[in-house]
Amino acid sequence: MSHSTLIENALQSYLDRKPEIYSVLWDSMRYSVGAGGKRVRPQLTLEFCTLCGGDAESALPFACAVELIHTYSLIHDDLPCMDDDDMRRGKPSNHIEFGEDTALLAGDALQSLAFEIMLSPDTLGRCPADRAAAAACTLAKLCGADGMVGGQVIDLQYEDKQASEQIITQMHLLKTGALIKAACLMGCIVAGATREQLTAASQYADCIGLAFQLVDDVLDVTSTSAELGKPVNSDIDNNKSTLVSLYGIDECMRRAKELTQQAIDALSAFEGDTSFLRDFALRLISRRN
Amino acid sequence: MSHSTLIENALQSYLDRKPEIYSVLWDSMRYSVGAGGKRVRPQLTLEFCTLCGGDAESALPFACAVELIHTYSLIHDDLPCMDDDDMRRGKPSNHIEFGEDTALLAGDALQSLAFEIMLSPDTLGRCPADRAAAAACTLAKLCGADGMVGGQVIDLQYEDKQASEQIITQMHLLKTGALIKAACLMGCIVAGATREQLTAASQYADCIGLAFQLVDDVLDVTSTSAELGKPVNSDIDNNKSTLVSLYGIDECMRRAKELTQQAIDALSAFEGDTSFLRDFALRLISRRN
Repeated sequence: MSHSTLIENALQSYLDRKPEIYSVLWDSMRYSVGAGGKRVRPQLTLEFCTLCGGDAESALPFACAVELIHTYSLIHDDLPCMDDDDMRRGKPSNHIEFGEDTALLAGDALQSLAFEIMLSPDTLGRCPADRAAAAACTLAKLCGADGMVGGQVIDLQYEDKQASEQIITQMHLLKTGALIKAACLMGCIVAGATREQLTAASQYADCIGLAFQLVDDVLDVTSTSAELGKPVNSDIDNNKSTLVSLYGIDECMRRAKELTQQAIDALSAFEGDTSFLRDFALRLISRRN
Repeated sequence: MSHSTLIENALQSYLDRKPEIYSVLWDSMRYSVGAGGKRVRPQLTLEFCTLCGGDAESALPFACAVELIHTYSLIHDDLPCMDDDDMRRGKPSNHIEFGEDTALLAGDALQSLAFEIMLSPDTLGRCPADRAAAAACTLAKLCGADGMVGGQVIDLQYEDKQASEQIITQMHLLKTGALIKAACLMGCIVAGATREQLTAASQYADCIGLAFQLVDDVLDVTSTSAELGKPVNSDIDNNKSTLVSLYGIDECMRRAKELTQQAIDALSAFEGDTSFLRDFALRLISRRN
């Protein structure tokens, strides 16, 4: 089975719950997880796991966990008290469809579910407990206050003022990069990677994370709402500091390409077939949505 | 050191972070964790751990984790899109003090931090990885969609209509009971408890969880705002279904006492000194706030 199919099937099975009373909560969770994300992060987890000699099946719970964390962050990000976005991936945002209260709770529950599936008896049957714990701890750290959420707070703090390049870079490394890094590292950890492999995966992740965010900011001003599946110019409308506002589109794309090359260079630390990860990095900067 | 002191010191050390840019996030997390909770849940974790022959120190990260989860749920519960409460424990709610966006993110980050500390290298130095994973999985399950958050959704669904006794009981078992159960079970798991001990801890937890909530609902109509540290009659004002509205105050207190006795009976499965847990159950129903 392809990695994509493995991921979709596993996500579906983890969300296949229909309790009698509060089924709307699971409906709301399924709505956002099934809303057509590109599954960038889970693909990275499976790819790094197999590259380090592990079995994709044993990394599957961790791949799904990082996607659930990503989904919860999008639901909370769209809430009126945050970015107040009514549309996400061409569909009404979770809180438009289910109400703010249920959306908030669906996000909370998706975070819990991520940790539950990484540490379940079923997962521990496929992956040693010490590796499962280390992988889950890596995700917890990188999605939390000194990771993704910290980046979101920096974003809030500089909403109405132009931030320095250093601050914006730090924000991107945390807000988007931390979860991408968690995805890559978890794949390595589950496979029992060496210290050198972990360092290389970390470098790859930092570079594509920053490149990804640069392209995201460029698309926000150059794409159409139909292509992007969400409103364009949202950064400008929200007075957000971006590297586009600091350096312009061309310089941003030049930096994105440079970072992509650095990411590809980091892959030389691995002995196996890195073509997927190389193409993956290249696709991230040529995407239109 | 007393269990209380151990808990306060550990919570403080886990929250002792002052990053340069986004320190307001940690301020906000500390604000709510330090807002004078009774530490009911962490006390239970440590007590069940020592009762099952374990060391309180090894259960400390799990005790703190359940308190962080409890705190995150209170922050999110107080938000305008939920209960919209401006006061909590006699102080302005987190979102009144820090804004809705930061409060939302502080709650999210507290959940992540809970899992990070249970699975950190430091914790795994004191507690075998399989036990740490099993305990963290128990908390994840019981605080998530089929636990605490599920109970919150039932609460929302019956906001404007009278629910049956069965529905209200189910709501309490999930909304309050699940986290109390997680606290008790984690203590047992860390100590390597037997199946019988886990069952007894579960029974104790279910009974005191329901009794706790019955007393909470009664205090909401009989206490003063000053005693309670939060607005009274909030259930009535929010048109919430409670067992008080179904059965009246006297019958609720009779049931709370009956459940407390059942909780105490369940403790006979343990060989050690259960006096703390017995007194604890009795104190829960005689409390004024």
